Amino acid sequence: MINNVKVELGERSYPIAIGTDILSDLGKRIKEFGFSRVAILSNPKVFHLYGERVTDSLEREGLKANVVVVPDGEEYKELLWVYYIYGEILKQRLDRGSAIIALGGGVIGDMAGFVASTYMRGISFIQVPTTLLAQVDSSVGGKTGVNHAIGKNMIGTFYQPRLVWTDVGTLKTLPRREFLAGIAEVIKYGVIRDQMLFSYLETHRQGMLDLESEVLGYIITRSCEIKSDIVSRDEREGGLRAVLNYGHTIGHAIETATGYTVYLHGEAVAIGMLIEARLSAALGLIGEEEYGRIRSLINSYGLPTDLSRDVVVERILSSMELDKKAVAGSLRFVLPEKIGTVSIRSITDRDIIAKSLNPY
Amino acid sequence: MINNVKVELGERSYPIAIGTDILSDLGKRIKEFGFSRVAILSNPKVFHLYGERVTDSLEREGLKANVVVVPDGEEYKELLWVYYIYGEILKQRLDRGSAIIALGGGVIGDMAGFVASTYMRGISFIQVPTTLLAQVDSSVGGKTGVNHAIGKNMIGTFYQPRLVWTDVGTLKTLPRREFLAGIAEVIKYGVIRDQMLFSYLETHRQGMLDLESEVLGYIITRSCEIKSDIVSRDEREGGLRAVLNYGHTIGHAIETATGYTVYLHGEAVAIGMLIEARLSAALGLIGEEEYGRIRSLINSYGLPTDLSRDVVVERILSSMELDKKAVAGSLRFVLPEKIGTVSIRSITDRDIIAKSLNPY
Repeated sequence: MINNVKVELGERSYPIAIGTDILSDLGKRIKEFGFSRVAILSNPKVFHLYGERVTDSLEREGLKANVVVVPDGEEYKELLWVYYIYGEILKQRLDRGSAIIALGGGVIGDMAGFVASTYMRGISFIQVPTTLLAQVDSSVGGKTGVNHAIGKNMIGTFYQPRLVWTDVGTLKTLPRREFLAGIAEVIKYGVIRDQMLFSYLETHRQGMLDLESEVLGYIITRSCEIKSDIVSRDEREGGLRAVLNYGHTIGHAIETATGYTVYLHGEAVAIGMLIEARLSAALGLIGEEEYGRIRSLINSYGLPTDLSRDVVVERILSSMELDKKAVAGSLRFVLPEKIGTVSIRSITDRDIIAKSLNPY
Repeated sequence: MINNVKVELGERSYPIAIGTDILSDLGKRIKEFGFSRVAILSNPKVFHLYGERVTDSLEREGLKANVVVVPDGEEYKELLWVYYIYGEILKQRLDRGSAIIALGGGVIGDMAGFVASTYMRGISFIQVPTTLLAQVDSSVGGKTGVNHAIGKNMIGTFYQPRLVWTDVGTLKTLPRREFLAGIAEVIKYGVIRDQMLFSYLETHRQGMLDLESEVLGYIITRSCEIKSDIVSRDEREGGLRAVLNYGHTIGHAIETATGYTVYLHGEAVAIGMLIEARLSAALGLIGEEEYGRIRSLINSYGLPTDLSRDVVVERILSSMELDKKAVAGSLRFVLPEKIGTVSIRSITDRDIIAKSLNPY
């Protein structure tokens, strides 16, 4: 069974298809677009696991599957490797009627999207996310990005895929720590928009951890529905979309301050959500009970809830000020008001932020 | 006096302002946008000539003018220098409310536009073109681009500026050969859309060559009107916009085949227009008289009309096939039907193309 979620963006609308073991049907679906050529971007690990299934399914439909492989890891999400990808697809003679297929996690999706948006002034782009983080978050919404030595994701575009093809079955091979980190983003959707999803995560912990298809299908579909609804109403992050940054204002700053070596993205977001929940409590927006539920849920999935003591709070504050969402110095936070509802507040009192960062 | 041309693209619409000695009014105009920060991208030559005028005008309005200078020349229009620009504007703390001002010719405009479209997923961008080519062509229409070792302008985006500020006075310092090359694009507008403009170029040759403000103001404004009308109806080169490629299908191939060392862009376009006019005559679309008028006009501005004998025709044919506008192997040409009207034809008969390339 395939769940379909539509991202409504006028002429840039596209479907997200979510199912179990559907990789081998990708060729048939892609055939419908009539692309002149296709190239798959992947990393060695994912390509080893799923490359054959995808290339076979393309070739069964008479589509030659060109392949570009880049090393696995955030540190390769930079312009040098983007330049390499341009060169490969030029040699493969991809033209304006061609498409790039991103087979992998967030790094592969971000790079493939950036390349698709800037190759010959824009070609088509298909997301085939293979990590939970990519399936519930980065493959939806059209943000692409590469890193600059001075700042992460400072280079990028808004560029929508033509299709997102999510095979829940790929989560079986995802390292457990990465899977758990992906759950942080699902918890986020619960806090910002959907107390039912939040409760579901509380009650279906075992099904989640056992990777039950039905449970995963539900939480991924619901996450995509929430994100797609928000993105449809604010494609270019003019306002509403900012609610998706719950946990991220602090989370990004933690990642920067710790040089991306200590926490996975989702882990930093988990800590960020807790700190921002504390900020919310300090401002009297939520009570002890809601704060406790958020903390327990994060904790129950084995995610970190507190900054380790050796992280320097001043560093986190100064990274926040260079964030690309910071406009002319003001710091804005997405703060829970209850489970399922958030509001956005500008905070100028640095002390209250510093105190929430460091509760000791 | 300032002539205003509006490029109608819905919420991405923008004005082109054309006047003489208006550089020092730029700050006042830019002030209206309320940008948080601005940075000027320029090259050493242009910045030496006009940088002070622009920075002074910004600073009079209380806007700090950050400056980024890159070396002068097409060979620097590549990702390494784009990476350098990202780094500089990150250090200057440009944020999403900031703008990049392109002060220079086509290379500066293409790079500044590319950077603006990909920095923090898109910031504002102002064109201040200082060459005739940029004033009548590359500053209008939203094409940005950088080169890849394998192909010119293979990397790029469609991204509209917020304002084009054209000071005709800057043409006084433009090398004569570059000025004449720019006229090729103006002749193109005459052939594809406006026999009046074509006649004007025939009758106002002296005024053009003497850089009379009124004459330049007219031909630049008219060129911008024509281009802006076409771009408004086909922003992303879906169909109509292809008429702007008259002279360019062959022109680009000539540039590639000669390694960009023999001809300036406008010169290659001049030869391309003549070859494509011959192709048109060979197909019986235009007669000897029209062909003669096009040839005479190009010739009267000191532009080349024929390929030099040592250019290898096979090379030109094979470059055409890698052009990003070529879709799955078919070669399409914009062919004049009379002065002011063109049609687009796919030609599969390589012999007829080869023959038009080499009339000897």
